[in-house]
Amino acid sequence: MELWEAINGRRSVRAFNDRPVERNVLERLLEAAIWAPSGGNAQTWQFVVVTEPGRIRSIKTVSPGLLGDPAAVIAVCQDLTKARAKGGSLGETFLAPVDAAMATENLLLAAYAEGLGTCVIASFHRGAVGTSSWPARGDRADAAHLRRLASRVSSRSLT
Amino acid sequence: MELWEAINGRRSVRAFNDRPVERNVLERLLEAAIWAPSGGNAQTWQFVVVTEPGRIRSIKTVSPGLLGDPAAVIAVCQDLTKARAKGGSLGETFLAPVDAAMATENLLLAAYAEGLGTCVIASFHRGAVGTSSWPARGDRADAAHLRRLASRVSSRSLT
Repeated sequence: MELWEAINGRRSVRAFNDRPVERNVLERLLEAAIWAPSGGNAQTWQFVVVTEPGRIRSIKTVSPGLLGDPAAVIAVCQDLTKARAKGGSLGETFLAPVDAAMATENLLLAAYAEGLGTCVIASFHRGAVGTSSWPARGDRADAAHLRRLASRVSSRSLT
Repeated sequence: MELWEAINGRRSVRAFNDRPVERNVLERLLEAAIWAPSGGNAQTWQFVVVTEPGRIRSIKTVSPGLLGDPAAVIAVCQDLTKARAKGGSLGETFLAPVDAAMATENLLLAAYAEGLGTCVIASFHRGAVGTSSWPARGDRADAAHLRRLASRVSSRSLT
């Protein structure tokens, strides 16, 4: 697909059919994500892919913004301890979310080229990720908590 | 250009020739940026484009991470007051930088398709943007400060 067709055509989608997303397609999406730039080339991102319907339902219980019944959920995470080690305070509080977002945009465009609808969700239940603030604000455990949560409900990780 | 050619081919570039970037090309880059999704479709981003060499040199004095002599600088800003009004604390502290980053990734890919090298810079001198913390941490004036700084040194704004 042409770059501009993807940029112009992508929309946020909140209604999905139940056709499974093949593993090789999911892997291509992650490959697109990790071609994005990252501050100091830190690449502290981690991705957790969930495809098992029951586990996606579990995630929905802590993600009020996750509408519809997608066939796959990809949690875009950051290892904030590593981000701080690589980039200091700026790395932890700014580069980590910004790097994750640039990777996510690549992923969205690649998904559109695969014929998949996507929607970025930022509304996780704060209690469920074990912090009182999202993202990091003095509590660098956010991503680790989310990753633990996601791994508890994940059938597989393509990290 | 094919989407995957852009995703795979883009690199962070820190050495530039002095060929000017035409205004219609710059406008295409901004158009690519604003096709990105934003939390709650808030679109609180603003872009300041600087092409006058003397003004770019001024920006470099407060941007130690800005290496080389690019023909154009695009400051990706957020109106944090508006972001807070639209998305509360999450909007101000998380969605604003994340939305800006997704827009930036589109811009980088579109620039590559135009044959332009790019590099994302996050290292602004904190004093120059008038805060002791970057990005927002209780001081929502960061982006406004940066925008004022940029507009002082900008020959034109394509916001």
